[in-house]
Amino acid sequence: MKILLTNCNTTDSMTAAIAAQARASARPGTEIVAVTPGWGPPSCEGWYDSFLSAAAVLETVRHYPEAFDALVMAGFGEHGRQGAREILSVPVLDITEAAAHTAGLMGGRYAVVTSLAATFPLIEASLRDSGCWALCSGLYATGIEVLELDAEPDRTVARFLDEARKAVSAGADSIVLGCAGLASLHSRLDEELDVPVIDGVAAAVALAEALHQLGIHQPARPGVLAKAITERPLPGPTGGPQLGDPAASL
Amino acid sequence: MKILLTNCNTTDSMTAAIAAQARASARPGTEIVAVTPGWGPPSCEGWYDSFLSAAAVLETVRHYPEAFDALVMAGFGEHGRQGAREILSVPVLDITEAAAHTAGLMGGRYAVVTSLAATFPLIEASLRDSGCWALCSGLYATGIEVLELDAEPDRTVARFLDEARKAVSAGADSIVLGCAGLASLHSRLDEELDVPVIDGVAAAVALAEALHQLGIHQPARPGVLAKAITERPLPGPTGGPQLGDPAASL
Amino acid sequence: MKILLTNCNTTDSMTAAIAAQARASARPGTEIVAVTPGWGPPSCEGWYDSFLSAAAVLETVRHYPEAFDALVMAGFGEHGRQGAREILSVPVLDITEAAAHTAGLMGGRYAVVTSLAATFPLIEASLRDSGCWALCSGLYATGIEVLELDAEPDRTVARFLDEARKAVSAGADSIVLGCAGLASLHSRLDEELDVPVIDGVAAAVALAEALHQLGIHQPARPGVLAKAITERPLPGPTGGPQLGDPAASL
Amino acid sequence: MKILLTNCNTTDSMTAAIAAQARASARPGTEIVAVTPGWGPPSCEGWYDSFLSAAAVLETVRHYPEAFDALVMAGFGEHGRQGAREILSVPVLDITEAAAHTAGLMGGRYAVVTSLAATFPLIEASLRDSGCWALCSGLYATGIEVLELDAEPDRTVARFLDEARKAVSAGADSIVLGCAGLASLHSRLDEELDVPVIDGVAAAVALAEALHQLGIHQPARPGVLAKAITERPLPGPTGGPQLGDPAASL
Amino acid sequence: MKILLTNCNTTDSMTAAIAAQARASARPGTEIVAVTPGWGPPSCEGWYDSFLSAAAVLETVRHYPEAFDALVMAGFGEHGRQGAREILSVPVLDITEAAAHTAGLMGGRYAVVTSLAATFPLIEASLRDSGCWALCSGLYATGIEVLELDAEPDRTVARFLDEARKAVSAGADSIVLGCAGLASLHSRLDEELDVPVIDGVAAAVALAEALHQLGIHQPARPGVLAKAITERPLPGPTGGPQLGDPAASL
Amino acid sequence: MKILLTNCNTTDSMTAAIAAQARASARPGTEIVAVTPGWGPPSCEGWYDSFLSAAAVLETVRHYPEAFDALVMAGFGEHGRQGAREILSVPVLDITEAAAHTAGLMGGRYAVVTSLAATFPLIEASLRDSGCWALCSGLYATGIEVLELDAEPDRTVARFLDEARKAVSAGADSIVLGCAGLASLHSRLDEELDVPVIDGVAAAVALAEALHQLGIHQPARPGVLAKAITERPLPGPTGGPQLGDPAASL
Repeated sequence: MKILLTNCNTTDSMTAAIAAQARASARPGTEIVAVTPGWGPPSCEGWYDSFLSAAAVLETVRHYPEAFDALVMAGFGEHGRQGAREILSVPVLDITEAAAHTAGLMGGRYAVVTSLAATFPLIEASLRDSGCWALCSGLYATGIEVLELDAEPDRTVARFLDEARKAVSAGADSIVLGCAGLASLHSRLDEELDVPVIDGVAAAVALAEALHQLGIHQPARPGVLAKAITERPLPGPTGGPQLGDPAASL
Repeated sequence: MKILLTNCNTTDSMTAAIAAQARASARPGTEIVAVTPGWGPPSCEGWYDSFLSAAAVLETVRHYPEAFDALVMAGFGEHGRQGAREILSVPVLDITEAAAHTAGLMGGRYAVVTSLAATFPLIEASLRDSGCWALCSGLYATGIEVLELDAEPDRTVARFLDEARKAVSAGADSIVLGCAGLASLHSRLDEELDVPVIDGVAAAVALAEALHQLGIHQPARPGVLAKAITERPLPGPTGGPQLGDPAASL
Repeated sequence: MKILLTNCNTTDSMTAAIAAQARASARPGTEIVAVTPGWGPPSCEGWYDSFLSAAAVLETVRHYPEAFDALVMAGFGEHGRQGAREILSVPVLDITEAAAHTAGLMGGRYAVVTSLAATFPLIEASLRDSGCWALCSGLYATGIEVLELDAEPDRTVARFLDEARKAVSAGADSIVLGCAGLASLHSRLDEELDVPVIDGVAAAVALAEALHQLGIHQPARPGVLAKAITERPLPGPTGGPQLGDPAASL
Repeated sequence: MKILLTNCNTTDSMTAAIAAQARASARPGTEIVAVTPGWGPPSCEGWYDSFLSAAAVLETVRHYPEAFDALVMAGFGEHGRQGAREILSVPVLDITEAAAHTAGLMGGRYAVVTSLAATFPLIEASLRDSGCWALCSGLYATGIEVLELDAEPDRTVARFLDEARKAVSAGADSIVLGCAGLASLHSRLDEELDVPVIDGVAAAVALAEALHQLGIHQPARPGVLAKAITERPLPGPTGGPQLGDPAASL
Repeated sequence: MKILLTNCNTTDSMTAAIAAQARASARPGTEIVAVTPGWGPPSCEGWYDSFLSAAAVLETVRHYPEAFDALVMAGFGEHGRQGAREILSVPVLDITEAAAHTAGLMGGRYAVVTSLAATFPLIEASLRDSGCWALCSGLYATGIEVLELDAEPDRTVARFLDEARKAVSAGADSIVLGCAGLASLHSRLDEELDVPVIDGVAAAVALAEALHQLGIHQPARPGVLAKAITERPLPGPTGGPQLGDPAASL
Repeated sequence: MKILLTNCNTTDSMTAAIAAQARASARPGTEIVAVTPGWGPPSCEGWYDSFLSAAAVLETVRHYPEAFDALVMAGFGEHGRQGAREILSVPVLDITEAAAHTAGLMGGRYAVVTSLAATFPLIEASLRDSGCWALCSGLYATGIEVLELDAEPDRTVARFLDEARKAVSAGADSIVLGCAGLASLHSRLDEELDVPVIDGVAAAVALAEALHQLGIHQPARPGVLAKAITERPLPGPTGGPQLGDPAASL
């Protein structure tokens, strides 16, 4: 099977890291094609970033020229999955949802350990929409920004371990990693902790394979794509009318 | 005071209708400037439309060249408000939220009467995020598409009345109109029903004035706009690389 | 417009302070008439106080001899608002509800900072009934009694600041003051904190003006006042039969 | 033991009927003393009535001159119980709570069958505060007013049976009678239905006996009664200043 | 009346202690017959134990050869009560449920103080099913295993007191003992704390008497017992086919 | 990999049907070993059945003499999974949970269509514990008993289709089959309906393969099996003391 994997941001190195993680957990016959959206924020750390990212990723998916068997959307806590389900009939796996359902299948409650506390409201909203919020024992932040996670790997692992242990002693039965693309982090935590450690990218790939195996499809809504979407003009001198141009006001 | 009013879709006639409604309910000294996003769907009737709309509206707001005292986002059940609050320090009034809080202030429970049942999940998600879902007695659909609401005004009023009466006899204490830009619908329902009928645009304008009067501001998050957003290239022959170009895959 | 403002207790100095606060936030054309109930507790700090207060305030409103355009009920966490909505068709603004809805309109979650932890159950019940409990990140108590709040203003401000900062670092996006009549407290907190600080009296006045501007009314229930209420006899020697007189038992 | 039983309204015939029901279900050694509040509404059918009733009943209890071992408050869906718990250390049994907990002890879910749908919000609020709302499968109304329940007993029984059967076929495991003082109604429904039928007065008496047997007390809050409550002056010519007298405004 | 009292485990000394506690709180005419299940775990401290215990207790009840008027199931947080209600028409009192409803009848919120934190998920599940979870302010663990509770009574009391005080200062209005058979613990805590302390066995006995007094029955489901249950063969050499024998696989 | 598959009841033909279904959806290298518990009810249609079944299945699993890589528990709405997770470190897939999580991964809300309405409380409890209750749009019953589902296949399919269509028009985005072992039912519904139709056995097998692929384990609790469980004596003449023997009472 072929899985289309979308990064939520425009940082190519993160796309590469996520793709590597996805390939490491995929079954032999599974092809992973990873794409970076052509526009949007370099990292998603809030609502503004997330809404831009959702549109950019949906456009990328819509214009992707080849067939694929499942979509994996890699952005922890980001928006967009319900839109993808309207324009596709293949399974759509968001890594936040996938991680939460995987944790649910292992029993008990999961905690999420992530980068910044500023992303808590987005993660909570995403988990609530996934239906799995009731299983979440808490959100924990390491205080390290997304683009810094890679900078000092040992410190990153140490901070994630600290927060994960705090979560476990407060009753968490599993740990969900609230970020993507950190394969070494996953394996280090897995070694050090007694409870399951769940990475959303790996989980989403395995679940995409499972849903493909089951042959389940949702109905795409043809009307959605039939609508004439006005394409965005190039902003500035070379493009059409300036966005937000007062002349555009009524 | 000056209110920036954004339509969620690219249909200019709807922007004009919404602006008229806003002006009709505004106080004498309030200036309403209405803008249509430069790209996006002609109407929002699902998740895909809504995520595109959110990004287009946020870009429109971000690039709007003049100062304003409050933002009113006119799209019932659409995404984006939390993003606007990150890039602005003035009050941000989403018409869904504004209508629900207004209904809450009148006491009891409100029902929403809207166009299509397909929008229920979006409306529910928006009301849950607003914190006012607990006050909602139910969602009711007339089965009339957004762009058809204007076509046969009498039939539209009749269908809204039917559903509103159903809601009232099932216990609703007020009716929220789940669409924007239908001033005549609002006044007709108000005449015919004993319970308060709430239009989100009017409510949002009045509440924007109230919050302005109170002098409340939220802190914008400066880091959000400091990030270098990659602008979207023009799609197709005149633009940069094709979106979703397989060459972009890793 | 004319707003009737009721204090929940019999302490005239608090009525005066609340009236001053209301007038400070009202628009030029708004008249504020403040009344003290003729009986009831000198301060409301529990369920017993609150139920007596609700009846005393409702009687005061019922017998108020002139017309008014909105009622503002000033008692944080106190009972009575649903009763007022049955006997009036003008908007009824309870300061607890008004503060919570205002916080909701600013986005995110609010914390309440109040006098004594003993009032938490009342405040929670009031916020649950308002439908805005889901937006509350927590209740915080300064440990200062209502009638002492004014005694040492600096200490009061310091304690409110401490609790508010605790709330903000635990994730609150705005602070609701859980008491009325402390204008200086409001302005001091507003200066010191980055998040919106919401005073229920000011919020209720601004929202009363907004609802009046919208022209919304709820239907009063005429049957409620048509019922023959037995007036309470004067207790003791000059009145009728002693309350709780064993002769009254069956 | 001695149980003080308060009617929520001023209708003596209802006090007598409730007292008879309480005595019929009490154990041999239990004395029931029933009191009618000296003021307040003749029946409670809404929020206004209920808040007046709560204050009148609390005053009645406060001034009751003799000792007793438990208080039973007979008013389905009415306010006041938390206030009574602050001024008493003996168990306080509200018939709404008592009926709901009894239904909970029988397992499964209960439905409430009551007089008018207008009382649903009060009943729901009372059951939510009792913590037993999660067990309620629904509220059902017969459409018969409280003071008419006695007028045509056969029609009353027939309507209650209809609604109870509707509730059972929708999944209710027991039926709670949402009114007091109708002993014949209780026995007729009990005969006709397969599921438990629970009368709040009988349940409250039995539970008062159980709590007394267990020797449980809650701590009264002495400060509550230490406060100087301003007594209400007689309204009108013979009394003090007119309630709501404009001269009383600030 | 006659109450059948089942211990959840096979430890006879605990059955004896529970029976003593039940008899101490029963009314004069109440006979308590206590039984130990003939198989199952020596103590229940997790899900596996609890499911075995539920089956063993249900078999014990089903085969109990004499009539009784109520069943009291003594196992805090253990499974089985809904099954007993299907095979019996007399009231079934689970001590977890009984304690929670008793706490609810005293008003406010209760905390549970129990042996090991490992039992929290079972206790939470049992309280959720009872409908009384909304009234629970928290679960607290002493860290002492069930079979050690008796070993050092003073240390046990001290640890329970510590946790109970923590709960009270965090807002609990009553304390539920999350274990059975410790009469001295109950009386010591009752002396030391200002809030009601509730023991599930005593509560269940008093409530069984109350429900019996009310004459309430639920309908047993005759079909349940009419089904031919395959009895379990003796495992090992003297019995039938080995459990889990690969020959039994299909 | 090797999956141990347990039927919840003692009916061998159902074990065979479930095993066939599991094998049909398994990947080539997956071995399915299906076992029937040696005792317990012939079908599970209520709480009593379910608690007996849980103990019988747990014993079967505990005594199963060979290694396996995952456990699939086939009983829709039945108890026991949390107990299995305490005694195993391999993934435990309950078909109710597995179906609900699969539905969650497809987006939107699922409805369950099952045999008898009497099983609704069990199914609801199982889905609540799974954390996926928030995604359930409703439970629907065909009114056909478990052991009759096979008797008239056409009528069974027709009734399931009716209820599934009712669910879809009430807003369900997918259908979960609330029973096991009916492969033909699954394929017929899948053909006739536009929304995903999810069979718990197939879903559990695919998810067991996914979790195995991810290499996730939960920690077994060694203490659980270290406890000395008293084995049940053979009842009646050939066994030990009669269960519930009055001599066993204290």
